[in-house]
Amino acid sequence: MRNKLTIGLFGFGCVGSGLYEILNRSGLFNASIKTIVVKNKDKKRAIPQEHFHFDKEVILNDPEINLVVELIDDAEAAYEIVTRAIRSGKHVVSANKKMIAHHLTELIDLKNQYKVSFLYEASVCGSIPVIRNLEEYYNNDTLSSVHGICNGTTNYILTRLDKEGKSFNEILEDAQRLGFAETEPTLDIDGFDAKYKLQILIAHAFGVITLPENILNIGIRNIKLQDIQYAREKGLKIKLIAASEKLDQNVIGYVAPEFVKEDSFAYDVNYEFNAVTIEAAFSDRQVFKGKGAGSFPTASAVLSDISAIQYDYGYEYRKKETTQLSYAPNFSTRIFISSTDPAKLDLIEFSEVEETFSSKDYAYKIGTVDFGKLSHALYRENPELFIAFFPESEHQFKLANTVGSEKLMAKLVG
Amino acid sequence: MRNKLTIGLFGFGCVGSGLYEILNRSGLFNASIKTIVVKNKDKKRAIPQEHFHFDKEVILNDPEINLVVELIDDAEAAYEIVTRAIRSGKHVVSANKKMIAHHLTELIDLKNQYKVSFLYEASVCGSIPVIRNLEEYYNNDTLSSVHGICNGTTNYILTRLDKEGKSFNEILEDAQRLGFAETEPTLDIDGFDAKYKLQILIAHAFGVITLPENILNIGIRNIKLQDIQYAREKGLKIKLIAASEKLDQNVIGYVAPEFVKEDSFAYDVNYEFNAVTIEAAFSDRQVFKGKGAGSFPTASAVLSDISAIQYDYGYEYRKKETTQLSYAPNFSTRIFISSTDPAKLDLIEFSEVEETFSSKDYAYKIGTVDFGKLSHALYRENPELFIAFFPESEHQFKLANTVGSEKLMAKLVG
Repeated sequence: MRNKLTIGLFGFGCVGSGLYEILNRSGLFNASIKTIVVKNKDKKRAIPQEHFHFDKEVILNDPEINLVVELIDDAEAAYEIVTRAIRSGKHVVSANKKMIAHHLTELIDLKNQYKVSFLYEASVCGSIPVIRNLEEYYNNDTLSSVHGICNGTTNYILTRLDKEGKSFNEILEDAQRLGFAETEPTLDIDGFDAKYKLQILIAHAFGVITLPENILNIGIRNIKLQDIQYAREKGLKIKLIAASEKLDQNVIGYVAPEFVKEDSFAYDVNYEFNAVTIEAAFSDRQVFKGKGAGSFPTASAVLSDISAIQYDYGYEYRKKETTQLSYAPNFSTRIFISSTDPAKLDLIEFSEVEETFSSKDYAYKIGTVDFGKLSHALYRENPELFIAFFPESEHQFKLANTVGSEKLMAKLVG
Repeated sequence: MRNKLTIGLFGFGCVGSGLYEILNRSGLFNASIKTIVVKNKDKKRAIPQEHFHFDKEVILNDPEINLVVELIDDAEAAYEIVTRAIRSGKHVVSANKKMIAHHLTELIDLKNQYKVSFLYEASVCGSIPVIRNLEEYYNNDTLSSVHGICNGTTNYILTRLDKEGKSFNEILEDAQRLGFAETEPTLDIDGFDAKYKLQILIAHAFGVITLPENILNIGIRNIKLQDIQYAREKGLKIKLIAASEKLDQNVIGYVAPEFVKEDSFAYDVNYEFNAVTIEAAFSDRQVFKGKGAGSFPTASAVLSDISAIQYDYGYEYRKKETTQLSYAPNFSTRIFISSTDPAKLDLIEFSEVEETFSSKDYAYKIGTVDFGKLSHALYRENPELFIAFFPESEHQFKLANTVGSEKLMAKLVG
């Protein structure tokens, strides 16, 4: 009943090695890893050296291997492996969000052409089955928004900032020491990792494929103790939110720090946990919470994809075929900016200012801006400047003629 | 691409009427309701009287109708409608947990024989897509437990008991007045509703189909102010938990009040919300949270089932075909019992007593009992006696030779 799978595995880090143990030693699955290809010849590994190969052709040219599991870091190498595997008629499971986000349209065309499955649940929020749910369950036309905490490193740092009163740099260094942050932390703390995941979520939520460069990402590295203090005084928390909403015939998306209230799905998601909330007309909000990264949570998502391929499952991208929506980077939103240098606040043009505060060493401003006035560069080039979204309610965005799910419900049923 | 569905709808309560509005007025789905059959001829309804029929044969004998949506309360009438619809080659979507729980094996055989889809996501936890996730995503062999708050009425009452310091009867009456509890509340407050849902969850989680009478249900009607007070002093909350765990080659299940700690998935699930947590080796715990009942959440689940049938989706019950597990009602557990009459505490035989407390008007005992010593009758016939599970950790059950997911992980990877 289950297809027998003979696997070629690229990468033998913590996820790959966990997967190897499960598949080859447990006998739980009708699948086994035949060949493992790694880059580094000298690294000490948990199983004997003779299991490893260093030439990708050993997998790609082996006709017996019908599934390639790609678990390497390098997005460019992963792209070559994945496209060549698909062209060789092999199914592929990947966890490489960056590679997928940059090449999704091409990869879909390719897997359609070669009639193989290409699954990547592990690329977004580790063990949370969010892609599968968006793809299979929320496949009607009423889905209205997806909001998530999709990066465990930043959520870990923000949780500790809130609880410990230390500075961003102190917590970051400690997180690096403990293995919760990379030595080179840019991908995480500047929101790139979350953005790649969001790009994939938007594709499966709304059927709209945009390039990562069209999605604004503002990270958390400029956060100051005073910002945390401000949030605490107001009963709020600051979380790095990846969000996408349908506004009329448009889809918007962003990754940015956001002040969240106690009733937000995000408020109690702490440390390395991830959560995604999906809103659809009539179903209210669904929250999916779980571990977003790490060896086992990621391996579990890879396992579920492998298991699905045994039953001939593949993403069908039905929404992509039928959607009338377009990705639009233009909307207005309410934000909070702060700086140790009050003059920096003038770098952003507000359409409406609601509050300003200024003291000798800290100033902030709250108000409405056009989204187009914000940019990643602005945040990166001005380390004094902390930028966060500050929604009044959970639906802070405004477009002319917005039809949100509540209006739809009122229209249909009220 | 989507199958066109012509629907016969049974029942026009809040769920049915919401569904009608969405399908027939929005044009969002390639599906429309052709005929509505209701029981009560005199009830005032939101749409003109000519839309209604009162004879089920109008739907069952109409060859043009290819999908029956059954949204009535009466389990026996629902059974007849659903089985006759399947035998007429019609797909069926149902929300009738009681009917499904009592007849699941037969219904599966029948839908296989007639090669139709029979879906019932709306029967368990409203808008939370838990059946679909168990069926499709957690289809590997590593799933180890499912715990849920599956009944909104009792969760609403327990939340208010915790916050307001009023008695159970006061809160129940208020809940009835506000529409959060039925006039006849037994199904909810004695745990039957949660038990039917649990029976369905067990089938899709573990492939094991047992009858509802094999699952112990202990409700919340005997809860006293002192019990709430006790929980508060210990930093705990009391929640009605429906749970199933794999213990070696057995599956156990129960519905009972349970003291939960702050780190439990259940602690912050309040009022009418539902949540389910699924534990699988390697994925840690996944939590799914959402609205469990009510017109729109339930209609949203029905909609997703309708949408899935348009794409020829059906539950495949793969685990049922391959499972080596059996349902076992025998295990030992740690419980808390209390009574206004200390003598009543002797009604339950403990294998080990850890704590006893006694005062003039309140006594309690904490310790280990064999599950077989507990019964629904014991709780129903002794209104002074409050019985709750009181786990030391999240895995409180013991069987000889237990292989839990942690051990499995340790064995495989450690």
